[in-house]
Amino acid sequence: MAKAKKEEIFSPGDKVRLVCGKEEYEGILLPRKDGDTGFITLKLPSGYNIGVSQARVDKFELVEKASAKVDSSGAKTTLPQPEGKTVSIIACGGTIASRIDYKTGAVYPATTPEELLASFPKIDPATVRAKTLFSMLSEDMSPEHWMEIAKAAHAEIKDGAQGVVITHGTDTMTYTSSALSFMLQNLPCPVVLTGSQRSSDRGSSDSAINMQSAVTAAKSDLSGVFVCMHEGMSDDRCALHFGAKVRKMHTTRRDAFRSINVMPAARIFHSQNNVEKLSDHCSPRRPEAKPTLDTKMNPNVALIYSFPGIQPKFIESLSSYDGVVIAGTGLGHIPINRSKDKLSTSILEPVKKLIDSGIPVVLTSQCIYGRVDMNVYANGRALREAGVIGHMCDFTPECAYTKLMWVLGHEKKQDKIQKLMETNLAGEISERSEIIPY
Amino acid sequence: MAKAKKEEIFSPGDKVRLVCGKEEYEGILLPRKDGDTGFITLKLPSGYNIGVSQARVDKFELVEKASAKVDSSGAKTTLPQPEGKTVSIIACGGTIASRIDYKTGAVYPATTPEELLASFPKIDPATVRAKTLFSMLSEDMSPEHWMEIAKAAHAEIKDGAQGVVITHGTDTMTYTSSALSFMLQNLPCPVVLTGSQRSSDRGSSDSAINMQSAVTAAKSDLSGVFVCMHEGMSDDRCALHFGAKVRKMHTTRRDAFRSINVMPAARIFHSQNNVEKLSDHCSPRRPEAKPTLDTKMNPNVALIYSFPGIQPKFIESLSSYDGVVIAGTGLGHIPINRSKDKLSTSILEPVKKLIDSGIPVVLTSQCIYGRVDMNVYANGRALREAGVIGHMCDFTPECAYTKLMWVLGHEKKQDKIQKLMETNLAGEISERSEIIPY
Repeated sequence: MAKAKKEEIFSPGDKVRLVCGKEEYEGILLPRKDGDTGFITLKLPSGYNIGVSQARVDKFELVEKASAKVDSSGAKTTLPQPEGKTVSIIACGGTIASRIDYKTGAVYPATTPEELLASFPKIDPATVRAKTLFSMLSEDMSPEHWMEIAKAAHAEIKDGAQGVVITHGTDTMTYTSSALSFMLQNLPCPVVLTGSQRSSDRGSSDSAINMQSAVTAAKSDLSGVFVCMHEGMSDDRCALHFGAKVRKMHTTRRDAFRSINVMPAARIFHSQNNVEKLSDHCSPRRPEAKPTLDTKMNPNVALIYSFPGIQPKFIESLSSYDGVVIAGTGLGHIPINRSKDKLSTSILEPVKKLIDSGIPVVLTSQCIYGRVDMNVYANGRALREAGVIGHMCDFTPECAYTKLMWVLGHEKKQDKIQKLMETNLAGEISERSEIIPY
Repeated sequence: MAKAKKEEIFSPGDKVRLVCGKEEYEGILLPRKDGDTGFITLKLPSGYNIGVSQARVDKFELVEKASAKVDSSGAKTTLPQPEGKTVSIIACGGTIASRIDYKTGAVYPATTPEELLASFPKIDPATVRAKTLFSMLSEDMSPEHWMEIAKAAHAEIKDGAQGVVITHGTDTMTYTSSALSFMLQNLPCPVVLTGSQRSSDRGSSDSAINMQSAVTAAKSDLSGVFVCMHEGMSDDRCALHFGAKVRKMHTTRRDAFRSINVMPAARIFHSQNNVEKLSDHCSPRRPEAKPTLDTKMNPNVALIYSFPGIQPKFIESLSSYDGVVIAGTGLGHIPINRSKDKLSTSILEPVKKLIDSGIPVVLTSQCIYGRVDMNVYANGRALREAGVIGHMCDFTPECAYTKLMWVLGHEKKQDKIQKLMETNLAGEISERSEIIPY
């Protein structure tokens, strides 16, 4: 009991020492969760977290009080803005800001900015300010969260931030980065989403590398929405991906994020604070630009994938949506059975019905990589004739989904929707196909 | 008019010469489609096709009559079985067996085995026999077609074929190869699907390379279901992928097919008839094995992808299916909103309702690469507790979809369905994760 009391005297962010028999642990004290008693969690100098059972602790000492700049009172903490470039960190949850429950082994999101900043001792607190917007795993994110994130990023830039880092769960990070690409316009500086594939409790965590690289990217001479995540098998670099041209392509690997159909914008070498430009499509930092926030979206959109044997009823059940994205096969196909094969089905009629009733249908490809082209095969031509949108577009299904929501927030007429969808608005459609490794 | 008449005298497969002013074309005459007048289509010695307007032709001469072994009468043609290994080619359509309509530029599937064989002059007709099963683009394939293909392949092996090549459209080829992996068991020899990404009319066609490599693979000392498609940027090789571990990952590139979560079985160097084994998981040819055909499937399965903002109504609309596969985000997640965030939705309840009503729900990952693991995060654990199937499986969404159909054809009880789904039956689940380029 004395031990528990002592922990309450120390504050999250304090540097402390635990003595457990012959073992000693020195590190930053991380906040504890409600109801999570019996364990003390420390961030070690290596950057990894450990959880120590309170029962094992013989001695619990203060090494150094946390910087007075860290306000431990509530959900919103802002560090004073230093001279030079100030990066605003908007915490939205995810593994990068998560903690292990050492009793069950499960991972929970962190909730306060102190906890977040205390987790990254290598980031100079004089150049960042932080706030917590959400504490959630990203599979629970909705289009309404994207709007809040866009508003928060816009407010930070208006408030003097010269770069924004958004920490976010990796599951749906590229849906969010796509949506932000349409909602945040005329950006003067970088808005960089980052996260981590492995929590900081694991020796192979990418948490610190990604965060440091994202801060470096946010200070860089670029502008636009990006995703900054680990690249390759070593620990020396991250890739900076264009927000509307990136996808999570692996469940566990640290280099899970891949640029789709383009080269990444840049490569970040965090230990040298070095940004190596890889793409000709990068926009430079524009300090004079006035950022525009445009969150008008219609979230009533469905995203489906075509598959052999897909039934008309599957398409018919989508009549209550205001827009539908279909990730077709190959160049952008769905079963239409022009040859009237008795074993085939066709979903052309229900697709036509959707379009005729005013619901735009956008086709992308479940191949993920490559461009839709409805002109190569007769089946594709039939889709174009039916009014299906997406010809010659090379956006991902996820990007098409967020773009259609945004376009539906601005246009009602199908011809105008088609024109906007098939026009590059935020780097989501490449003019020409690059031959890139994939 | 005289010219048109002359063309009718020559038969598909004949080697002919066209003189058009100062230009001359020599090649194999390809069959013409009903109503497709005005163009003559030749397969050139290079392997590429050209279409020549009849109006340009000044002279039309026979160079060499087609081999008498080719029967030009109807839809089913079988070449006499030679000594040594005989490969049976089952044509199911697709670009590899397609022809251009030179008036419109659209691509149509070939319909006869003569046309198919005439297109591949480098394949020794003495070692193959061919039949046409379907002439269709693969986006129109259904589970019922898979059953017919399985039956045809099984019949060919029972009838003495020592290897089977199935030509197939690329769009849904890996759905078919997955399904065949479950339906064809105890195979003595290879069953190899192939196709082409670019029709033989294009200089960069992969049609001849893929077909030659597939025939080489079908004669190899392996057994099992495979996909053989172009690999890399040069023209020297194809990859031989395991049928249940491969996916089409690009709309247009010739090296679009990738092994997912495993190394390819082998690499085929067609010009040397060389098969280089790459995987330890290859099964050897087993001449004594008696192949089993098991096409019992329940095709009433839906395949959906989770996305931010997915509504309960989307899941509720699936209650008429007998099984559902969800490609979740990351390690296998869907929105379940444990924290009761007012901006979030949850589809946990409707998923539970499906399961409680006897409809098994299988989770895979929309990352495509990597393994599902519902134990890492609290949200994943909640899904496992709800009875969601797929923990620790690394099959693709497409493979999970075909496997669930096959398992539902054999089991009705959810615990038995779960056990079969989570057990490796046909190489679709890797025991350990390999670090492979992707």
